[in-house]
Amino acid sequence: MRNRLILPLIIALLAVPVGFAYVHWSKGGPGTGLYSRHWSPDPVQGYWDPDNFYQSTKIVEGVFKAELCIQCHEGITPGIVADWRASRHAQSEETVTCNACHGNNHQQLRMPTPDVCGSCHEKQHGEFLDEARYGFPSHVLAMDRAVDAKHFVDKPKAEVQSCVQCHSVATKCDSCHTRHRFDAAEARRPEACITCHSGPPHPDDETYFASAHGKLYLAEGNGWDWSKPLTKGNYKAPTCAYCHMDGGRHQVAHKSLWKFGLREVNPHTSKNQLLRKKWIKLCSDCHDEEKARQWLTELDQERKQAWKKLYAAEDVLKDLRSDNLLHPAAGERPPYPMDWLDSLWPRERIGFFEGQASVFYNVSAIERDYFEMWYFDNLGAYKSAAHGHSTGVKEGHRKMEASLDRIETQADALRDLVEAEQEAKITPEGSGDLWMKGAYTDYNREHN
Amino acid sequence: MRNRLILPLIIALLAVPVGFAYVHWSKGGPGTGLYSRHWSPDPVQGYWDPDNFYQSTKIVEGVFKAELCIQCHEGITPGIVADWRASRHAQSEETVTCNACHGNNHQQLRMPTPDVCGSCHEKQHGEFLDEARYGFPSHVLAMDRAVDAKHFVDKPKAEVQSCVQCHSVATKCDSCHTRHRFDAAEARRPEACITCHSGPPHPDDETYFASAHGKLYLAEGNGWDWSKPLTKGNYKAPTCAYCHMDGGRHQVAHKSLWKFGLREVNPHTSKNQLLRKKWIKLCSDCHDEEKARQWLTELDQERKQAWKKLYAAEDVLKDLRSDNLLHPAAGERPPYPMDWLDSLWPRERIGFFEGQASVFYNVSAIERDYFEMWYFDNLGAYKSAAHGHSTGVKEGHRKMEASLDRIETQADALRDLVEAEQEAKITPEGSGDLWMKGAYTDYNREHN
Amino acid sequence: MRNRLILPLIIALLAVPVGFAYVHWSKGGPGTGLYSRHWSPDPVQGYWDPDNFYQSTKIVEGVFKAELCIQCHEGITPGIVADWRASRHAQSEETVTCNACHGNNHQQLRMPTPDVCGSCHEKQHGEFLDEARYGFPSHVLAMDRAVDAKHFVDKPKAEVQSCVQCHSVATKCDSCHTRHRFDAAEARRPEACITCHSGPPHPDDETYFASAHGKLYLAEGNGWDWSKPLTKGNYKAPTCAYCHMDGGRHQVAHKSLWKFGLREVNPHTSKNQLLRKKWIKLCSDCHDEEKARQWLTELDQERKQAWKKLYAAEDVLKDLRSDNLLHPAAGERPPYPMDWLDSLWPRERIGFFEGQASVFYNVSAIERDYFEMWYFDNLGAYKSAAHGHSTGVKEGHRKMEASLDRIETQADALRDLVEAEQEAKITPEGSGDLWMKGAYTDYNREHN
Repeated sequence: MRNRLILPLIIALLAVPVGFAYVHWSKGGPGTGLYSRHWSPDPVQGYWDPDNFYQSTKIVEGVFKAELCIQCHEGITPGIVADWRASRHAQSEETVTCNACHGNNHQQLRMPTPDVCGSCHEKQHGEFLDEARYGFPSHVLAMDRAVDAKHFVDKPKAEVQSCVQCHSVATKCDSCHTRHRFDAAEARRPEACITCHSGPPHPDDETYFASAHGKLYLAEGNGWDWSKPLTKGNYKAPTCAYCHMDGGRHQVAHKSLWKFGLREVNPHTSKNQLLRKKWIKLCSDCHDEEKARQWLTELDQERKQAWKKLYAAEDVLKDLRSDNLLHPAAGERPPYPMDWLDSLWPRERIGFFEGQASVFYNVSAIERDYFEMWYFDNLGAYKSAAHGHSTGVKEGHRKMEASLDRIETQADALRDLVEAEQEAKITPEGSGDLWMKGAYTDYNREHN
Repeated sequence: MRNRLILPLIIALLAVPVGFAYVHWSKGGPGTGLYSRHWSPDPVQGYWDPDNFYQSTKIVEGVFKAELCIQCHEGITPGIVADWRASRHAQSEETVTCNACHGNNHQQLRMPTPDVCGSCHEKQHGEFLDEARYGFPSHVLAMDRAVDAKHFVDKPKAEVQSCVQCHSVATKCDSCHTRHRFDAAEARRPEACITCHSGPPHPDDETYFASAHGKLYLAEGNGWDWSKPLTKGNYKAPTCAYCHMDGGRHQVAHKSLWKFGLREVNPHTSKNQLLRKKWIKLCSDCHDEEKARQWLTELDQERKQAWKKLYAAEDVLKDLRSDNLLHPAAGERPPYPMDWLDSLWPRERIGFFEGQASVFYNVSAIERDYFEMWYFDNLGAYKSAAHGHSTGVKEGHRKMEASLDRIETQADALRDLVEAEQEAKITPEGSGDLWMKGAYTDYNREHN
Repeated sequence: MRNRLILPLIIALLAVPVGFAYVHWSKGGPGTGLYSRHWSPDPVQGYWDPDNFYQSTKIVEGVFKAELCIQCHEGITPGIVADWRASRHAQSEETVTCNACHGNNHQQLRMPTPDVCGSCHEKQHGEFLDEARYGFPSHVLAMDRAVDAKHFVDKPKAEVQSCVQCHSVATKCDSCHTRHRFDAAEARRPEACITCHSGPPHPDDETYFASAHGKLYLAEGNGWDWSKPLTKGNYKAPTCAYCHMDGGRHQVAHKSLWKFGLREVNPHTSKNQLLRKKWIKLCSDCHDEEKARQWLTELDQERKQAWKKLYAAEDVLKDLRSDNLLHPAAGERPPYPMDWLDSLWPRERIGFFEGQASVFYNVSAIERDYFEMWYFDNLGAYKSAAHGHSTGVKEGHRKMEASLDRIETQADALRDLVEAEQEAKITPEGSGDLWMKGAYTDYNREHN
């Protein structure tokens, strides 16, 4: 009898807080995403995520026909009118004018979202949306991923804004097809990609341009006919888009095998063997299939070697954790937003696998070194190996070795110091205050 | 009675050394500027500062008409003759020949200074000179600033020579208009600027080319008509000169608001509001005014965040100074040249505000870290934010955080070590000798 | 009598092991070079060193005439056929078809080596081979040098493969003349060189493009006529090839004076004065001879200053060695391959001069810092000075100073720690295990 009451009782007791939480949640806040209540958008974000945040400036009143838009803007912003005139929108039989994308009421102008572009460019828009089923990394999920990241409300908004700018590739089309030409020929060139795909942790720019492929592009690319589709025989050397968007397909995730070098990948699963065949087929547009296969084997071996080093570093950190030598430790700093489990039961996480990836800004110096080894040195080596930049492979592994050396040296010094302190009966002071007790993150959560 | 004698006596006693000092000063030495007596120019400096140092090579004797110059140099250095032939100097009705700039006596050839060019190009030369009233940073004061810097005679000449090379933009015109085409079209392109404006602490090159603006230039700039003036509608994307020398105005300082990111700037002063309006007007050549305003607000916020970090680091250093833990301390190293006050009363300066900016080469490792945080990490973030290179903003702040972490960790370790040494009654040895007691700087002052 | 027997006896006793060693040696292993028995080539190496390792893929059977090759590959790999059609091989009177280089039996295809190309291009091939008499660095010895390096079998193959890729410039011609155009015009452009000549320790790419010369190339190079030979008057600004392969001469070593900045060079030897004259003559294609001479003097002074810093660092390390403070010490890590003398008598080497150059991967952190100061900071400064990238000179010396500071600080800390440990009677634990006792290198020697 008593047993039959327990379950309903538990459900009833849980129902109240869960209900409250749900209501709280569903109302949302001025931001978007998981932490919508914890941040407000800066006005400029309207240009990066127009669907959620754009507000028309309301300077000019009136409803205008395209001729009038053009007439006026010819004087105010002649460059964008000239670009439009040179575009297919202006030159095709059925002209696409200002109104089609921005509306005609100047008080309620809109910035076009992918849906607006997709109303005509159905195929491309469909392919773009389809990326979602491959998860992240992908372009279509880039904005969600940015604002749902654990650190998005923890770090100062002045810094995370710079993330949002590139991640806006999910919420507008002119990241690649710049306004107002929106030219396929432009988007086929590597410059369309490298505005975002450069610098650590994704030196696609640097590694491609340093490869034999990139070198050919640099020396001769200005003379190539960029109006041609991205198919076999049309280009002397491949570009970002030729390989990752082959045939002009508007999504890059369907061939994704090595996952940005972020995780160790087993290249021998049947799924990965299939992906590998796609790559080999692509390479054989120009190269012997066997050669492509051998290059990919080299990439596998580079990855294996990189992970060997990363695991060695991770082991050092795990040993320090076992001995309680990492400070600030999990309980000494604030939990990440909405991680109620972490509030109750703070756990020191080591590296990507334990879920520490996004939060390496309020940790000890040695943990930061590990983060940088993984996120910068390792990914630099990966991108170099994948893009054929051989000196970059050497450089990435050189940096990984230097990081590992530094991590080991620091760990040794830490143990030596603790031992000396114990001998001398000194109580250690602990590390600086900045990252401790939420001095950094609490402030940001209140002000972002 | 005695009182009436004291003042004349003091004056008389002061007059002698002041008089000696003045005579010494007024005679000057083989160099130029504040420390002219402390250095001699290398011969190559004649090409960088011709007015002060160029000496004709005197290999050939004779006074020549232009036809003869050309005839002979067609064989010796055909490239420069071909450049001249392709220039407006050769193609305009009133030909400007060799003699106009170099003279016609081969024993007394001169290298043209801005004054020589300015004798025809009055407007541009006037604008260039006008920069002086905005102080430094500016092009026209670049050479003075280089040779008057505290470290100019303190550091080895082999190193400061590399400074002089770029700072020669003040003393010759072919830094931007390379000889012998002297083409406006060339100087309008970003390449004219980036020979000097690259690398830490002023990665203008890297941040512009990584921005959406720079990407458009890279992809399409070769096809633009560079003979057009730098005004609204003529260029699809802006370049260095389009924004900083808008309308072709030969000075960049009149819009200078953020001062290179070197100091914290209050963006709300009425003067800075006026400067901001100039920028917004410029941006609105292509963009909505409101958007420009919002972007600049983002830049303000980035700056605020950067200074928060810099002040945190400065505080750590000031605390160490209070506890007398910075070595070599002010009294342990030589005063800077002609800083007689520092000889009598050595003071440990922290950071830019206390006047330490130019001298971070004979200080402790932790002070150097602070210098690099300020001068490299911070300025990298600033230039990225100002030029629209979003991954650079992230990277700059990541580096600032890493520097701050390192500074705090070093400060903790320093305190721990001192405490342990006190417990163990060990007298610390102090840091290495290189920077101490002038071993480094005294040598240079005698040999530069 | 006994004396007369001793020598023959010693010879007889030595003969046996020496004989065995010779037989072992002469048979060689699956690799090439000094350590041929210690490594096996990955299949991809067949493309980098075809003479030694290429194996035909044997997918297609048959002996084909060129027409058939072309007909089939027009469909399979149309790009390479198009390149060939645009080449002089296809357009000259005496057509050079597929067979000439690859053979006509599809089961026994070959990848062309320099010898194959040299059978027609005798002059260029002869010049290329002639580089050998200048020793290394040189292109023709690059592959030998790579596989004979002490670390080639000691480091993981996944890493040293990235070396072999660039060093294949010795064993195939399409490193510079990419297939299947093999265009002289292409190889004259700097992009042909920078695929390999970039990044630390040889930032030729970065330093050239940041110079005034490189800037002119970037802004205008696309409009130059690259079919012209590399001689006086044909190019507005010099490129890699213009200076290092002047007149189209296919070897770069005959003017080599500063030896990559790796060693200190006495510029005043009569041999080096002759080499200097070659450079001055080259510079005077465009510049005043006197100016060229002065620039080279600046380079000498930069080098002198760099070595002053390097020696200061070396002295710190030698002092640590004298006091037995470097760990792992020579006896604590495995000897380098085939260094039997090191096995018997392990010696701690400091820096390049004592022969430690190639092996800075299993040493203490402070030795690694010294290596990086020498190999990266110093060479960055050198290349900047040599290529006219003035901000790079400043940056290189700034990094050298920071490295020197770090080395001195570490050395001080090491001495302090040891002193404190002695006071407290603590036995130090020594450094991490990774580099000790061959854990790292033994594994690689078995698996490479």
